[in-house]
Amino acid sequence: MRWVDSAGWDYPSKMALFPPSLRQLIALLERLPGIGPRSAQRLALYLIRRPTDEVEQLASALIQARHQVRLCERCFFLSEQTLCEICQDPSRDANLLCVVADARDVVSLERLEQYRGLYHVLHGLISPAEGIQPEDLKIRALIERVRTQPPQEVILATPPTVEGDATALYIARLLKPMGVRTTRIAYGMPVGGELDYADAATLGYALSGRREI
Amino acid sequence: MRWVDSAGWDYPSKMALFPPSLRQLIALLERLPGIGPRSAQRLALYLIRRPTDEVEQLASALIQARHQVRLCERCFFLSEQTLCEICQDPSRDANLLCVVADARDVVSLERLEQYRGLYHVLHGLISPAEGIQPEDLKIRALIERVRTQPPQEVILATPPTVEGDATALYIARLLKPMGVRTTRIAYGMPVGGELDYADAATLGYALSGRREI
Repeated sequence: MRWVDSAGWDYPSKMALFPPSLRQLIALLERLPGIGPRSAQRLALYLIRRPTDEVEQLASALIQARHQVRLCERCFFLSEQTLCEICQDPSRDANLLCVVADARDVVSLERLEQYRGLYHVLHGLISPAEGIQPEDLKIRALIERVRTQPPQEVILATPPTVEGDATALYIARLLKPMGVRTTRIAYGMPVGGELDYADAATLGYALSGRREI
Repeated sequence: MRWVDSAGWDYPSKMALFPPSLRQLIALLERLPGIGPRSAQRLALYLIRRPTDEVEQLASALIQARHQVRLCERCFFLSEQTLCEICQDPSRDANLLCVVADARDVVSLERLEQYRGLYHVLHGLISPAEGIQPEDLKIRALIERVRTQPPQEVILATPPTVEGDATALYIARLLKPMGVRTTRIAYGMPVGGELDYADAATLGYALSGRREI
């Protein structure tokens, strides 16, 4: 016997013992990335035993964040306003434009407190395997942005993966005829890493990216 | 620089770039069991990109489950009614009462489709280390239940841990003067397990619980 709820999810019979509202919550939690059936069950059983106001606070934080957070109109980083904090900051160097795959990458780079230019968040990488095409990403907007407000340099900071390489190459080809200097961040041995432990791909990047000393 | 939000949570500065409503959501998700800072961030970033109605469905499922699920008045399993499905089922054998630590244990035992008696959920185990006393659990209610509706046998199905042992012993001592047969489920080698790989505690249970063949 399996149960199908209003969300169209079905449950193995062992869950059927739980009350419907609990089953529904478990089913929705299971859809979240990185949450398996066991974690979903544990989370749901934890949540229904918490004080009502705590659960209501979480529910309202979910809705608030979903409604208030939008993408910056210029760089597509996250913001509650038309332009994000970085784009609004007049002290940032508009001549440098760093292209990243994900909003989290902006946070990682900002943590360095070294880069003072602007960003452009693609919101993904080209991946034929996952059916992600260039038009699913913020690539057209990037080209348009470079055309209307050309920076001196576009830094491609996509990860050193098949998808990251393909995306960087795709963007570089579009930018080349526009005469903007296009660079890609260096990939190689991490500081403190031992050659012995490095994977072949990293070692390959390190070798081909060698520089004179 | 650290941020403190209305929930009293503070964030390392690297999060300060995220909009306030997103930071609040991440902070609340981080409080959940098994969700670390990284998972909380990933979950929040995932959720704010989902369709509004999907997020609202999750928020409302949270509130619904919290408000509708309560404890069965007799056995303290989860239910949306006064009595749970098992207690309401007239075909269950009221002469058998199985005492478990957690609602999930009921589901595990029901999955066997072997036990046809009733349950009593303690909602925890005695643990001086965690400050959990007998009066924090549904032990008084168990004794009262056995007194008013005595079953033929009470099966203690607490886990074979220090806390599970202590709780079973504590309950057994209270039930003894009441003249009810009290048993505990068998602990020993799991089926298919090799002695070589068994931990000392399991092997100890297996040895001391030996039976004539």
